[in-house]
Amino acid sequence: MLPQEIIRKKRDGGKLSKDEISFFVNGYLDGRIPDYQMSAFLMAVYFRGMDFEETTYLTEVMLNSGHIVDLSDVPGIKVDKHSTGGVGDKVSIILAPIVASAGVPVPMISGRGLGHTGGTLDKLESIPGFKTNLSIEEYKRVISEIGLVMIGQTQEIAPADKKIYALRDVTATVESIPLISASIMSKKLAEGIDALVLDVKTGRGAFMKEYEKSLELAQTLFTIGKNFGKKVIAFITDMNQPLGYAVGNWLEVVESVQCLRGLDVPDLMYVTYVLAGAMIMLGGKANSIEEGIKIAQKVVLSGEAYEKFLQLVERQGGDVSYIENLEKYPMSKHSIEVKSMFDGYVYEIDALEVGIVSLILGAGRTKVDDVIDPKAGIVLRKKVGDKVEVGEQLAVFYTDKDDVIKEAKERLSKAFKISSEKPQIPKLVKTIIDSEGVREWK
Amino acid sequence: MLPQEIIRKKRDGGKLSKDEISFFVNGYLDGRIPDYQMSAFLMAVYFRGMDFEETTYLTEVMLNSGHIVDLSDVPGIKVDKHSTGGVGDKVSIILAPIVASAGVPVPMISGRGLGHTGGTLDKLESIPGFKTNLSIEEYKRVISEIGLVMIGQTQEIAPADKKIYALRDVTATVESIPLISASIMSKKLAEGIDALVLDVKTGRGAFMKEYEKSLELAQTLFTIGKNFGKKVIAFITDMNQPLGYAVGNWLEVVESVQCLRGLDVPDLMYVTYVLAGAMIMLGGKANSIEEGIKIAQKVVLSGEAYEKFLQLVERQGGDVSYIENLEKYPMSKHSIEVKSMFDGYVYEIDALEVGIVSLILGAGRTKVDDVIDPKAGIVLRKKVGDKVEVGEQLAVFYTDKDDVIKEAKERLSKAFKISSEKPQIPKLVKTIIDSEGVREWK
Repeated sequence: MLPQEIIRKKRDGGKLSKDEISFFVNGYLDGRIPDYQMSAFLMAVYFRGMDFEETTYLTEVMLNSGHIVDLSDVPGIKVDKHSTGGVGDKVSIILAPIVASAGVPVPMISGRGLGHTGGTLDKLESIPGFKTNLSIEEYKRVISEIGLVMIGQTQEIAPADKKIYALRDVTATVESIPLISASIMSKKLAEGIDALVLDVKTGRGAFMKEYEKSLELAQTLFTIGKNFGKKVIAFITDMNQPLGYAVGNWLEVVESVQCLRGLDVPDLMYVTYVLAGAMIMLGGKANSIEEGIKIAQKVVLSGEAYEKFLQLVERQGGDVSYIENLEKYPMSKHSIEVKSMFDGYVYEIDALEVGIVSLILGAGRTKVDDVIDPKAGIVLRKKVGDKVEVGEQLAVFYTDKDDVIKEAKERLSKAFKISSEKPQIPKLVKTIIDSEGVREWK
Repeated sequence: MLPQEIIRKKRDGGKLSKDEISFFVNGYLDGRIPDYQMSAFLMAVYFRGMDFEETTYLTEVMLNSGHIVDLSDVPGIKVDKHSTGGVGDKVSIILAPIVASAGVPVPMISGRGLGHTGGTLDKLESIPGFKTNLSIEEYKRVISEIGLVMIGQTQEIAPADKKIYALRDVTATVESIPLISASIMSKKLAEGIDALVLDVKTGRGAFMKEYEKSLELAQTLFTIGKNFGKKVIAFITDMNQPLGYAVGNWLEVVESVQCLRGLDVPDLMYVTYVLAGAMIMLGGKANSIEEGIKIAQKVVLSGEAYEKFLQLVERQGGDVSYIENLEKYPMSKHSIEVKSMFDGYVYEIDALEVGIVSLILGAGRTKVDDVIDPKAGIVLRKKVGDKVEVGEQLAVFYTDKDDVIKEAKERLSKAFKISSEKPQIPKLVKTIIDSEGVREWK
C-alpha cells in the first residue's frame, strides 16, 4: 500500500477499507507516514467525508492506538455523558454526582476549553487543589471507592487522536463530522464505559450552528457507539444563549454547587435532569428517562448529590472548604456591570459573543499555552424572555485585566438584543436519538 | 497572517489575494510554513480550484522564487514550445531544429519522463555524450551561437515549483489544473522567451483524458502567458494512440532523425509542422501559421533542419557519429514481435497501455531514482486505420529484461483493438486558442 494511493482514493470519493485506514493511521503514529501525507488525507476527508463504517474503523484504530481502561471489576453499568461543547455548559459538574448518587458509576474523562467554549477540566481545576491528572490506576481506584471520577485525557488514551488533533488544528481540518466523531468516540470508548449519553449542541454558541449538521453529528456519534456494542442515547440541545447564568470557570463551579444544593436554574437544570435521567435509565436504575429524571431530582433534594460532589472534590485533592464556603474564593480586581439601554424583552443573547468575551476576560485560552484566570468570567442577570428596563443590569463581568474592560462591555452589551416583542423561548431539548430512531423530544 | 487561515479561506471556496499566495508560497520555500500546511493547502486547491487571477499570482510567485534568464542580448523573438506530455511525443526534437533553421531562436528547458509519458531530456540523454545539465551561462552561450539550446530545469529556475511539485507527487495533488498550469508556466516564463506555443494533449494517453479538461488547461495556460505579456498560441491535439511509431528514448531519437532527414511519418509530422508553423509565425518569420508550415517543410527538405540538429548534438557534447550512423547504437538483448491474431483494421491503439508497457520494458521510471534503459521501448508496425492480417506484425518491442517479456507481449497485444470495421481516423489537431479566441482547427 502506498500512502498517496490511499489519499487519492479518498480524494476521488472512494470508500476506504479497514486495512487502508489502519495502515494510514498506524503508519502516521509510528512515523512511517509523514505529517504532510496525513494533512492531505485529512483535507480529502474534509471534502469527501466518510460513511458510518469508515468512521467506525477510524475510531477503532485510534482507540486501539492506546490503552483501553478495563472497569469490569467495578460493579454496575458504567455510564458517561459527552457534550460537544457550549457556553456556560457546566452540566457535567452537576450531573455526574447526581447520577453517581443514583447508584450508576460515572467514569468521566473530560477535555479543556476549546475556542469560545469552556472545558470541564478547566472548571474543576479552578477548585483549589483539585487534581485532574490522575493515573489510570488512581482513576480506577477513585471510581471503585466513590462511584465517580473526573479526569483529563492521559498520555495512554488514544494517542493517535492526540497526534491527529494537533495536526487538524493547524491545517484547517477540524470541522469535519467523521473526524470530530472518531476523535470524540475513541476517547470515550477508552474510558471503560458500558453506556453513553451524548449532548450534541446546536446554535450560535455551538460548533455546529445548523441543526442539520448537529443531527448528522449526533447520528454519527450514536452509530459509532452502537457499532462498538455500547448503549447510547443522543440528544440535540439548544446552544443559542448560554446555559444557566454563569460563564467562566470558578463562576460555573459556584452555579453548579448552588444547583446541587437545590437552586433551580430552569434551563440548566432542565437539560441536566434530562441527560441525568437518560444515564440513570441506561445504568439500569430506572425503567424510563422520566423515572430517571425523578430519581435525579430526588437525590438533589435529599442532598445526596451535593454530598457526592464534596466527596469527589475531597477524593481528588480539592479543598472542600471553598465549596462549603463559596465566598472564601478570591475576587477579581474588576467587577463591571452591563446595563440595558432599552425597555423591553431580552430577545436574544448571542452565546458565541458571550463565549468570546469570557475568553478576552481571561477565562479561556487564545493560545495553547495561555494561563487561565479561574475567577474571570460573566454572570448574566437576564436570560432570553426576561423583561428588562433601561438601566437594569443585563450582566456583570469579572476580570483582573485593565485593558479589556471597554471591549468586553461593548461586546457584551451588543450580545443582548432587546425587543419590544416577547420572544418565543427556544426549545431546549430538541431531539432524541435512541434505538427506536430519531424523534422530537416531547 | 496565519497559514491555517489561508488554508481555511481556500477550503471554503474563497479567492486568495496576491499577498496571501505570496505569503504562503514564500513561507513554504523559506521553511516558515511546514510541509503539512502546504499539503493541506494543495488539497484544498485541488477541490476548490483557483481562478485565472489567482493562478497568475501563483505562477508569478513561483517564477520569482528563482532566476529568470535574460535573453535580451540574443537577437530575434525567442519562441519555445511546451507539450503537456504524451506517448511517442518526440515533437520537440524534430521541431526545435526546424524552427531554429527558420531563423527563430528556440530556448528550451524540458522535463523528464513522468508516469507513462516520455520526457525530452531522457530522449536527448540517450545520445551518447549529450549533456542537458548546462549552467545558465552555457545555456545563453549555446543559444547565442546556434539559435537553439535544449536543457533541463536547473536549481536556479523556479525552486518553489520544484519543492511544491515533490510534495504534490506524494500527496495525490498532482491532478489540479491551476497547480499544473502554474508549475508549467513558472518554468517556461523563466527561460527568457518572448512567445510560447502550447501543445495540450487530450485522450487516453494524455494526463487530461477528457476534452473539456484539456480545454480548461489550455485556456488557463494561454491566459497566464498573456497575463505575463507573452505571445501565446495553444493547440489541443489528439493523444489516443501514440504519436508516430517509436516509443522509448533512443528509438524516438531514431524516428526523429529519420523525419529530420525527410521521412514522412504522417501523424507525427503533421503535428510537428503545425506547431513549428505557429512558432515561426510568432517568431516573426511568417505572416501566418500556413506560411510558417511551408517554411518548416522547406528547411526539412533542404537538409538545414537536420544540419541544425547535428550542430545541437555536437555543441551539447553528444557523439554525432551515432546520429549519422544510427545502426552504431547498441541493441537490446531481446527484440520481440507482437503479431495480430485477427484480420481487419486497427481500430484503436491504447496509448496509455503502450506507455505503461514501455515503462515496464525499462524506458521509464516507476520510482524517482530508477535508471532508464535508453535502448528499451516499442516500435509500432501498424497505426489506427491500417489494414492487418492474421500473423502480421503489430509491433516489435526491445528490452534487456528477461522477466517482463510475457506481460509486455500480452498487454501490448491487448492494446491493439482489431475490428472488421474501418475506424474514423481521429482528428489530430483539434483546437486552436489564440488572441482571436478558441476555435476548431481547420
